[in-house]
Amino acid sequence: MRNEFCGQVTEKYLDQQVEVCGWVGNRRDHGGVIFIDLRDHTGLVQVVVEPDNEAAFKIADGARYEYCLRVKGMVRNRPDGQGNSKLATGQIEVVVDEYHVLNPSKPLPFMLDENPGENVRLQYRYLDLRRDNMQHNMRLRSKLTHALRNHLHQSEFLDIETPILTKATPEGARDFLVPSRMNPGQFYAMPQSPQLFKQLLMMSGMDRYYQIARCFRDEDLRADRQPEFTQLDIEMAFVEQEDVLQMAEKLIRDTFKEVMDIELANPFPRMTYAEAMRRYGSDKPDLRIDLELVDVADAVKDSEFKVFSAPANDPKGRVAVLKVPQGGANFTRKQIDEYEPYARRFGARGLAWIKVNDKAAGKDGLQSPIVKFLSDDALAGILSSTQAEDGDLLFFGAGKFNEVTQFMGALRIKVGQDIGRVSDTWEPLWVVDFPMFEFNEDEKRWDALHHPFTAPTGSVEALQNNPGEALSKGYDMVLNGVELGGGSIRIHDQKMQSSVLELLGISEQQAEEKFGFLLEALQFGCPPHGGIAFGVDRMATLMCGEESIREVIAFPKTSSGACPLTNAPSTIEAAQLADVHVQVIEPEKDD
Amino acid sequence: MRNEFCGQVTEKYLDQQVEVCGWVGNRRDHGGVIFIDLRDHTGLVQVVVEPDNEAAFKIADGARYEYCLRVKGMVRNRPDGQGNSKLATGQIEVVVDEYHVLNPSKPLPFMLDENPGENVRLQYRYLDLRRDNMQHNMRLRSKLTHALRNHLHQSEFLDIETPILTKATPEGARDFLVPSRMNPGQFYAMPQSPQLFKQLLMMSGMDRYYQIARCFRDEDLRADRQPEFTQLDIEMAFVEQEDVLQMAEKLIRDTFKEVMDIELANPFPRMTYAEAMRRYGSDKPDLRIDLELVDVADAVKDSEFKVFSAPANDPKGRVAVLKVPQGGANFTRKQIDEYEPYARRFGARGLAWIKVNDKAAGKDGLQSPIVKFLSDDALAGILSSTQAEDGDLLFFGAGKFNEVTQFMGALRIKVGQDIGRVSDTWEPLWVVDFPMFEFNEDEKRWDALHHPFTAPTGSVEALQNNPGEALSKGYDMVLNGVELGGGSIRIHDQKMQSSVLELLGISEQQAEEKFGFLLEALQFGCPPHGGIAFGVDRMATLMCGEESIREVIAFPKTSSGACPLTNAPSTIEAAQLADVHVQVIEPEKDD
Repeated sequence: MRNEFCGQVTEKYLDQQVEVCGWVGNRRDHGGVIFIDLRDHTGLVQVVVEPDNEAAFKIADGARYEYCLRVKGMVRNRPDGQGNSKLATGQIEVVVDEYHVLNPSKPLPFMLDENPGENVRLQYRYLDLRRDNMQHNMRLRSKLTHALRNHLHQSEFLDIETPILTKATPEGARDFLVPSRMNPGQFYAMPQSPQLFKQLLMMSGMDRYYQIARCFRDEDLRADRQPEFTQLDIEMAFVEQEDVLQMAEKLIRDTFKEVMDIELANPFPRMTYAEAMRRYGSDKPDLRIDLELVDVADAVKDSEFKVFSAPANDPKGRVAVLKVPQGGANFTRKQIDEYEPYARRFGARGLAWIKVNDKAAGKDGLQSPIVKFLSDDALAGILSSTQAEDGDLLFFGAGKFNEVTQFMGALRIKVGQDIGRVSDTWEPLWVVDFPMFEFNEDEKRWDALHHPFTAPTGSVEALQNNPGEALSKGYDMVLNGVELGGGSIRIHDQKMQSSVLELLGISEQQAEEKFGFLLEALQFGCPPHGGIAFGVDRMATLMCGEESIREVIAFPKTSSGACPLTNAPSTIEAAQLADVHVQVIEPEKDD
Repeated sequence: MRNEFCGQVTEKYLDQQVEVCGWVGNRRDHGGVIFIDLRDHTGLVQVVVEPDNEAAFKIADGARYEYCLRVKGMVRNRPDGQGNSKLATGQIEVVVDEYHVLNPSKPLPFMLDENPGENVRLQYRYLDLRRDNMQHNMRLRSKLTHALRNHLHQSEFLDIETPILTKATPEGARDFLVPSRMNPGQFYAMPQSPQLFKQLLMMSGMDRYYQIARCFRDEDLRADRQPEFTQLDIEMAFVEQEDVLQMAEKLIRDTFKEVMDIELANPFPRMTYAEAMRRYGSDKPDLRIDLELVDVADAVKDSEFKVFSAPANDPKGRVAVLKVPQGGANFTRKQIDEYEPYARRFGARGLAWIKVNDKAAGKDGLQSPIVKFLSDDALAGILSSTQAEDGDLLFFGAGKFNEVTQFMGALRIKVGQDIGRVSDTWEPLWVVDFPMFEFNEDEKRWDALHHPFTAPTGSVEALQNNPGEALSKGYDMVLNGVELGGGSIRIHDQKMQSSVLELLGISEQQAEEKFGFLLEALQFGCPPHGGIAFGVDRMATLMCGEESIREVIAFPKTSSGACPLTNAPSTIEAAQLADVHVQVIEPEKDD
């Protein structure tokens, strides 16, 4: 139907005939001549219909926005001064010989350069995807997945598909369920990840496995989540942590080079979980922001100001400062005050601050509601630890370690963005040496920080004696404050696996029911193994410079899990439900 | 953990130290020395533990089948006469310095060179996959999918993922359903194919799309089907049938060359549906078998033998012969008689035959229960049409066209296999010019032969005036009698689409409910488009020389849709079901 794409009809076609297909964008009538911008996925070309081509002119006069056309014509130079240097096709135009309407278009519900809002965009996703930006995103994502696959294939990883109709998996979020017709009263669960299958593949001797796998979590869709998402899943046999880190780092470095022409650091910096929490208040620190938290517990230990001294003396407490360079000089009092409600959203009970006006003037040079509670020594200690300069602003967080770390980490990001200290760079790092467990205060038991199949660094005995101190062979790859991927060396010893499940409060019977097949498989010569999984949607989002993963998914769901385009989910007739042996529970009336 | 794979420790390592990991296969004690075949995914190597290495010998003495080991040792030549020329590592052995048990193994439920039956194989799939054959299948499949993707990526197709939680799709089989938690009483359907989404992507201006997509059909699992299967899905905008055929043919030809080093015919032969049914009794003819059906209606039109003459005079009837070369000479009467019950399984009511003993002797030279009913002219006509020679056997099918075609086509395959006339070649072809509809006798309405979005060759008027004669722009790619893929040019005109849905007996309201979004999308400048989908499981099965797709799927289901490994599907607690607003319908008692 065509012999060239619209965006590629350049001067090389001068005085030649081309056939192009595409959609009508802008259309102008000027001096009795019709000018049409014809667009396809490669760009646009100016099409000219002159009145002496009567047949074409008559039809072209009816051309409307987003009509789909095929035209054949001669390429000529645009008249002097009418070129457009921004377009590859900006120096030429196509003078129409033949003009075919492949399909007309109703008036669109919105113009492609308008944003009609999320719901309308999703309802008419096929129009929304015609925008340049969405075209770019879909193309970049396709390039990304191909680069990832290519790298792994060449590294002798096998692409193996694992089931989507399967059993509940161990990630702990809610499963989507699928009633079975052939097995009345029974249900498949959709996988939250291929975790158990990839471990089984290592036990199968497959050696190296990967899959770009669809995963499903029935969670509330705050925080830019989707009920189905895409994960690059990788597993290797006969490896230690260092092997996986090297492989994964090279994969991501090569992929960024290939897709974005970006050189990431070589090697990636590595940081322990403990250090990341201390310095950045996050297990996924955004290293583009050069602000750090500073611990000042030592300086305020002996203070009479209990708000500081109590946590400073508590092994589980923390007193930390975020220094805002020249924040004192540049922020208004109102601006400073606005950070407190922000910090509260992340668990702070208050947000003390000190403006460093004139260090040389001692206490008098410091402006703050709390200065009066602090001794000269304490203040001197704080100024020295934070290396504060005149004009700086200090925010204080004091309380339980986890709480302070969380809100001060959030504050660090917010302040960094507000004062423009987010560098225009790509900052990857590894976070390693995670704790094996964290204590779940609500349920008074240990939770796995990664998942129950992550190997600890020590022995079964060490783990049982002091679960709170145990570190895991887990690792996260972080890029610009986003967790790009995470993984671990897995437990390959059945005794260790049973111990960990026990510590997590999973009874032997539960373990047998949920993971019995894994526990048995471990006993048939399971090789040491480990792996990693990357969030493909998130990686594409970062590369596209988008905020939401919905911008890199062709047909995403709304936050209520609906698809405004197809109207999924929808009601199903009772008879069809009866085929799969279920019925809807009608909501109780007056309830 | 290792510096080489087991199967790659060849003479080049002579007198060097290697570290290898793997599983214990055969283990022999000979002259006080322990010999172990250590295996990984690349092959096996002979490991020798000598008694003077006391530490290692002591542990190695406990080595059992499928123990997982790491060993370090010097490579030396095997003693003269003990080499094994069938193995890449057959001339050397590794004399152990260090010997580590990475994981012991319980006794296996079966030996890897035994076949313990489907159910045990699936229950211990991680052991079953350790077999050489399954290793080969998984590796070939991975190579296949990568070759397909690579070809399409280089041909500027975009890999775009479409939803798995979606709405009922139009293939007509039963959908798997997923209750929605956030939308009480509503359900997602899992896609039987990405058909509508790929059409929407063409309307989105994506130009060329592909996806290796998981598809789901809740069908009874006879005929080597799985509830989830994998499809290579392809769609192109601004194309006609010839464009898709060229693209798809090159894709498959290049892929067979790349993966199997096989040169498929260039170009593939093409055959109309009508011709395929006449000559081969199948819309997916196996061209490796050089037998053909021959129509003899003309010869028997005037016969008094109504069994032949009635269908011969009926425009919807058929009288066809399958000639079995030298079948008369070689088959016993018992063998001949056994084909009748076979043909009955495919709808035959009987199976007449004639043995051609001596053509020159006329009627007397023909042996058959039916010869007496046929005139000399009729017999002469039959012998001439079929070019029968002395010693040949003729099978006759007479009745309705579709019925005769079906059982005679099945008989052709069976006879071809029995007499060894299946060539050892790869025989691809295109079947084209399918009828648009076939009449559903049970429901007295038209069914789509492909699917309701397939474009007819003619106009809306032609279609409405004579639906039974309309041909579609559908096409199937067949290889060795297997339908490898199928597709069509789609309808891009909304009026045509509505007409087709109407002819299929789908009411306007139903059409609106199920496909309303597609019908609307067609009105916004939808480009002409078409595509094809290939069965990846089936393609891999053919390439691996297997009979069942279960041999190329890592974790398949049994014929009752169960997974003996994970015990999916399983019962779910009522509370968890209540979260998604459903309950199980308990079977009625005494029923």
